[in-house]
Amino acid sequence: MKLSKRQESILEIVNNYGPITGERIAEMLSLTRATLRPDLAILTMSGLLDARPRVGYFHSGKSRYRVVAEKLNSVLVDSVKSVPIVVNEKSFVYDAVVTMFIEDVGTLFVVREGGLLEGVLSRKDLLKTTLGSHDIHNLPVKVVMTRMPNVVHTTPEETVWLAAKKIIEHEVDALPVVRKVPLEDGSEGLEVIGRLSKTNITRLFVELGEGY
Amino acid sequence: MKLSKRQESILEIVNNYGPITGERIAEMLSLTRATLRPDLAILTMSGLLDARPRVGYFHSGKSRYRVVAEKLNSVLVDSVKSVPIVVNEKSFVYDAVVTMFIEDVGTLFVVREGGLLEGVLSRKDLLKTTLGSHDIHNLPVKVVMTRMPNVVHTTPEETVWLAAKKIIEHEVDALPVVRKVPLEDGSEGLEVIGRLSKTNITRLFVELGEGY
Repeated sequence: MKLSKRQESILEIVNNYGPITGERIAEMLSLTRATLRPDLAILTMSGLLDARPRVGYFHSGKSRYRVVAEKLNSVLVDSVKSVPIVVNEKSFVYDAVVTMFIEDVGTLFVVREGGLLEGVLSRKDLLKTTLGSHDIHNLPVKVVMTRMPNVVHTTPEETVWLAAKKIIEHEVDALPVVRKVPLEDGSEGLEVIGRLSKTNITRLFVELGEGY
Repeated sequence: MKLSKRQESILEIVNNYGPITGERIAEMLSLTRATLRPDLAILTMSGLLDARPRVGYFHSGKSRYRVVAEKLNSVLVDSVKSVPIVVNEKSFVYDAVVTMFIEDVGTLFVVREGGLLEGVLSRKDLLKTTLGSHDIHNLPVKVVMTRMPNVVHTTPEETVWLAAKKIIEHEVDALPVVRKVPLEDGSEGLEVIGRLSKTNITRLFVELGEGY
């Protein structure tokens, strides 16, 4: 909600002098109480101000940016995820690097049969490996990947906000988007169905700020 | 602004049947016009609905998420930028890779005397180079970096939103934050004073959505 200049002034007064009566606010702004009524109504209805009889107006403690938080928490991973780029668990580091360049992504997911998540390979992992004196044509990706169960992941139903929090907390560039699938042995596997990266989040940030 | 259930219903009715009179909206909700008055007031004052005499209420065309766009456009690069990690223009690719690992960043800025921006090195640039049959101990960074004037950059005064848009459009991971400095020859140089990456934007996204 875009507040008017007068509403901003009211908020500032309540911030500095609250709790304060409507009469006193009107006085300070050299306006009548009647003129202020709609503004005070909108400020209380929007939850920015609280009012109590014989006390007056005071800050509700709610942020006016609650609506921003609300929106950022409403977008689901499913709506912004990208196609996952995967390599087979039996492939070699050289193949992984080539795939990374061909597909131009920063993170690869390592899968076994059925697209089941086994591990993750980042550009950093591969750079470290190529720097070493390894023969990357014969080095299995399994040796250098981050492997399950240490792979942080997300689901289509999770909010982008929660996924972004995981990315920051675990210091990774991207998360595999997975869904649980029952395995023959009765346990559960994670099928890789998408990729959520810092790029997706940056793009969402740009989209949400568009048209201002 | 968090709308009440009734306000949501009003918006929906106006969306489907607008322009529509307040009386008709009240009828459809089985409420009196008086009961609806504060809700209609808040919806029009917040800019979500417009009203015209003898026409009724209709959608203003403004998005309720304008406030989100507004907030996302209000944060400046200066408030979220990180410290820049730089290498000298005379250093070698090997030094750059080592710096990248020690500092754990994805992008390095190449500078000359005075911290003036000469180029940028990404993890992708370095991975490509280490893959080749180069002797990276003797390969100058100047050979593999993206060089000025092709380096997209930002300033402390720019909005994070605009910087994020540059990151997406130019498909880079980070931007150098620069300020113009006059050079002895009368021209202008760009002093590197910060770094804005997709990580900064993801972190901001998380912060703005916090506490919902």
